[in-house]
Amino acid sequence: MLYGYLRRVLKVNLTTRSIIKEEVPESYLRGYLGGLGLGARLYYDLVPWNVEPLSSENVVILVTGPVQGTLIPGSGRGLIISKSPLTNRFFSSNFGGYFTRELKEAGYDAVVISGKSDEPLYLKIDDGDVELRSASKIWGMNAYEVQDAIKDELGDRKFQVLCIGPSGENLVRISAVIHDIRAAGRGGIAAVFGFKKLKAVAVRGSGRVEVAYPDEILKFFIEISKKARNHPFLVRYGTTAVMETVNKLGGLGTRNWQSEVFEGASRISGQTTIPKHKVKDVACAFCPIGCTKIQQIREGKYAGMWVKGPEYETLYSLGSMTGVDDFPTVVAAARKCDELGLDTISAGVVVAFAMEAYEKGILTAEECDGLKLNFGNGDAMIELIDRIGLRKGWLGNLLAEGVARASSIIGCGSQYFAMHFKGLELAGHSPRAVKAWTLGYSVGWRGGSHHDARPHDIEYANPVEVRAFSIDGKPELIRDTTLRVMVEESLITCRFFGGYYGVRTPGETHSKIIKFVTGWEPSVSEITKIAERIRNLIRVIEVREGFDSKADKNPPLRVLYEPIPDGPSKGAHTSPKEFKAMLRKFYEIMGWDPDSGVPKEEKLKELDLDFTLLK
Amino acid sequence: MLYGYLRRVLKVNLTTRSIIKEEVPESYLRGYLGGLGLGARLYYDLVPWNVEPLSSENVVILVTGPVQGTLIPGSGRGLIISKSPLTNRFFSSNFGGYFTRELKEAGYDAVVISGKSDEPLYLKIDDGDVELRSASKIWGMNAYEVQDAIKDELGDRKFQVLCIGPSGENLVRISAVIHDIRAAGRGGIAAVFGFKKLKAVAVRGSGRVEVAYPDEILKFFIEISKKARNHPFLVRYGTTAVMETVNKLGGLGTRNWQSEVFEGASRISGQTTIPKHKVKDVACAFCPIGCTKIQQIREGKYAGMWVKGPEYETLYSLGSMTGVDDFPTVVAAARKCDELGLDTISAGVVVAFAMEAYEKGILTAEECDGLKLNFGNGDAMIELIDRIGLRKGWLGNLLAEGVARASSIIGCGSQYFAMHFKGLELAGHSPRAVKAWTLGYSVGWRGGSHHDARPHDIEYANPVEVRAFSIDGKPELIRDTTLRVMVEESLITCRFFGGYYGVRTPGETHSKIIKFVTGWEPSVSEITKIAERIRNLIRVIEVREGFDSKADKNPPLRVLYEPIPDGPSKGAHTSPKEFKAMLRKFYEIMGWDPDSGVPKEEKLKELDLDFTLLK
Repeated sequence: MLYGYLRRVLKVNLTTRSIIKEEVPESYLRGYLGGLGLGARLYYDLVPWNVEPLSSENVVILVTGPVQGTLIPGSGRGLIISKSPLTNRFFSSNFGGYFTRELKEAGYDAVVISGKSDEPLYLKIDDGDVELRSASKIWGMNAYEVQDAIKDELGDRKFQVLCIGPSGENLVRISAVIHDIRAAGRGGIAAVFGFKKLKAVAVRGSGRVEVAYPDEILKFFIEISKKARNHPFLVRYGTTAVMETVNKLGGLGTRNWQSEVFEGASRISGQTTIPKHKVKDVACAFCPIGCTKIQQIREGKYAGMWVKGPEYETLYSLGSMTGVDDFPTVVAAARKCDELGLDTISAGVVVAFAMEAYEKGILTAEECDGLKLNFGNGDAMIELIDRIGLRKGWLGNLLAEGVARASSIIGCGSQYFAMHFKGLELAGHSPRAVKAWTLGYSVGWRGGSHHDARPHDIEYANPVEVRAFSIDGKPELIRDTTLRVMVEESLITCRFFGGYYGVRTPGETHSKIIKFVTGWEPSVSEITKIAERIRNLIRVIEVREGFDSKADKNPPLRVLYEPIPDGPSKGAHTSPKEFKAMLRKFYEIMGWDPDSGVPKEEKLKELDLDFTLLK
Repeated sequence: MLYGYLRRVLKVNLTTRSIIKEEVPESYLRGYLGGLGLGARLYYDLVPWNVEPLSSENVVILVTGPVQGTLIPGSGRGLIISKSPLTNRFFSSNFGGYFTRELKEAGYDAVVISGKSDEPLYLKIDDGDVELRSASKIWGMNAYEVQDAIKDELGDRKFQVLCIGPSGENLVRISAVIHDIRAAGRGGIAAVFGFKKLKAVAVRGSGRVEVAYPDEILKFFIEISKKARNHPFLVRYGTTAVMETVNKLGGLGTRNWQSEVFEGASRISGQTTIPKHKVKDVACAFCPIGCTKIQQIREGKYAGMWVKGPEYETLYSLGSMTGVDDFPTVVAAARKCDELGLDTISAGVVVAFAMEAYEKGILTAEECDGLKLNFGNGDAMIELIDRIGLRKGWLGNLLAEGVARASSIIGCGSQYFAMHFKGLELAGHSPRAVKAWTLGYSVGWRGGSHHDARPHDIEYANPVEVRAFSIDGKPELIRDTTLRVMVEESLITCRFFGGYYGVRTPGETHSKIIKFVTGWEPSVSEITKIAERIRNLIRVIEVREGFDSKADKNPPLRVLYEPIPDGPSKGAHTSPKEFKAMLRKFYEIMGWDPDSGVPKEEKLKELDLDFTLLK
């Protein structure tokens, strides 16, 4: 008997409106832990290789891990898995809050939504009572309004709501699924919701997640909480403090990565703004850190406007990337993204791309329809975000496709500075100042996500010669942190507890957590094997979907050819030769074919993935 | 009654083996002249937009113009039209020799070959006697051997043969159709032959092409011949002399366009080699110039080896591009291409690409399977050409796909130096030293062909400030020379008579030629309208095949971002802004939509292309 799981998946078909509950085989839990692992296994079973992301055949999988609904610190997270309309690949998008705790308490490890409705719907899950309800009245509402409206309609604020804003309805490929004030931001999965005419999922549970060792978990919670409350910056600043750290290292993407030092960083970083603007600390379920800061503008044209964070990634994308260092403007832009249901990272990168294209004369004044898209023009940024989120005008509609598609249509050399990996806009950790990231982003299953590997968790402490100018040991670093990520994404634990649970590889603490929750106590080597199994299963899915090594080989050209021009990491880039060498080494240590990047047959057999071998 | 035409098209289906003769409507001749115009019209009628180039649905159209078989100087040419397996677009490949004269004398303006055979065949056309014959015994022969074998089998050396070598049989996407010692080199149409299992077409004719004013034509022939015999270099050197001219201007693609000055140019240029190596002058049908030079190596390991030319384009691609300045080696490489049936331009560009990738560490030693692909390594070049032509080994097989596909698979930043437009490897006239060419190649229907427009015919005489550093008047220059090319490719006259017939726009001499041959005397403005009609019809085909303005917007990134590092054109490149400005202006003066590049409805109506408007 495994505690911590409900062993139940809810399957909803929007076309037929069928609602069924199925048992999850124990082999899926022991084999893949939950979360990303379980989601990948369900995706492998359910999604044929050639499915169009925006089609009734694509599925949305909401998935939890064993720790959701327990006191394990960092358990307040969940995943949405689907084929991404942005990258056309298997995708997982991680979000925090209370939704997955509630889902577990309602009795489900996962929800699989397939089909497509003709009219707007939302899904209500109230313990065993599951219902598809009309969303006609709430279709078109922004992502904050709609959550309130649903809670009002259902008559209980306890319902946790996952929803899309107008961007998802408009099939914007960089749209985000919103829960509470948080986002499952990346990969445009909100467009899959929009296509299916699924406005929201609301869940309420009255059950309890049974665990194997409740007393041990309580002790563990107290122990970790004590440490975590002493975190050097997360408790006080959340991620808003990261901006200064990264800027000081000379790795802060600035003006579309034309530089990696932003002279305005300290005007928008948490160290400056939190003392003045913070109105509230917020936490995900059972989190002792509470890294979420609500900041509110006090005066000026945005007086009264508040926003979650903005998190570091948003300060990067809507701040340094666009050259905007006016804090109220960044807040207003972030707020607009949240309401529209847009991924702030992708939105900012896309705007920065358009700004560089405009300044280079590739986008003409007519094409920008009146917008003066110079770097630093915050008003233009906000207007452009609005156009993107609503697909207004030629440019807004084009940029709504994401930077890879947009640059391929704009052409004229804009491909050179389209900052994405695998079609996913680049997050705020530098692939030049942290050379390992060039490899990490490239071999990630998502691409430009800073959560596919975590080299900077280690490299930011290293001197620049190691971090930015050496390839030694980087393939190993990417492999190790990828395996760590596999465990964290499958349990699902918050990345910010990595420092306490194991910052490089899966470790003893993971083993302990699994034991406390499930009663099962896999060894570190067993957990490592599970982590490898999950990454290899996802790799098999990638290959099946048409992506072998050639998809791993396309870092932005700027990263390969243009050294950082100034600052502490000046001169850093990843030459094509270094990149190629890291890539081949990575394949080798992963047990993947060094040419094709396809897992070798013996590796798949070793990981009990024989069933994926094509006959 | 229009003289000069036979009004007959031969249609052969390789699947059903049906052979029929159809009348060509007079409207097709008056509307499109012949050649490219007639071929485009037939293609428009016959080839649905989504046809796979290597499929039985694709067709091969051999086409002549009104002047073939007449004494009009420069009439010894023909076209092969098909959907290119290299560019996936409408394509026309021009070749010289005696084939089209013979085809006209056999009684046909055009031959359309469709379907696909299960066993190797060749097509024999002997006046009205047309037969598909087994090619089982000659399949696998090189392009020189097979022509002899067919003439032997048919018992008459008068048969003119168009054939493919082993590369076409191997579906190499840069393979060339060979006639005599000449090539319809570009676009990989030989792979279409290979796919269809069509090894060759042999033709013999006993008829005569009736013309309207034979005496005038004779006088015209004498008049032009006198001028042409005084051509400053073609009579003596053919195109082998062009290398020094272009090198002196600082526009000679060298080491994959890392430079545009080649220190070894004078070791392989005609001025040096012709006096020592020329053994023979050869001419196309009725040509007073005879620009073809046969050169033979006297000593060393290639003693006795002879080759046509090598033409300037081949000296560029297999010489300066690969950094090889040993003349016997260039001759041996060119000879190998001819025998295999490979396009020398594309082959050289692909080899140069591989050399740069090797030197940059993007291609590893293992991937090159023992070849040391440094620039200047002539032996490695010859071996690699062999592997490409026969698809031997991983690298040979990959490069056989052409530089665009190869770079997209190799990745690692190699896209930056993949020197092609629209998938067609770049010819030997610089898009940086002749800035107008950046536009010309980009808006050509083929892409990297130096025959889609002809700006250098005018720009080489201009100072570097005009030629390389100004965009003024370049869109007009590209439009004008494109229209000239439309007339030349449709009549079909050799480019080298452009200097006598009109070097920029269609002119009086074209009107005169048409009158002498056909009896019809269109005015210059009528001819210009026909030229516009042909280009617009091809544009409609391009759009139908999925290529609107976005396909025009992708010059090689090196052209946009990397100034020429040294030599007389030092500093020249075409910035993204300049390129964009030229492109929009070009669309405007063509009557095409400035955003989409699609011909406007009123333009199509003005050109009597209403039938192409989608209902």
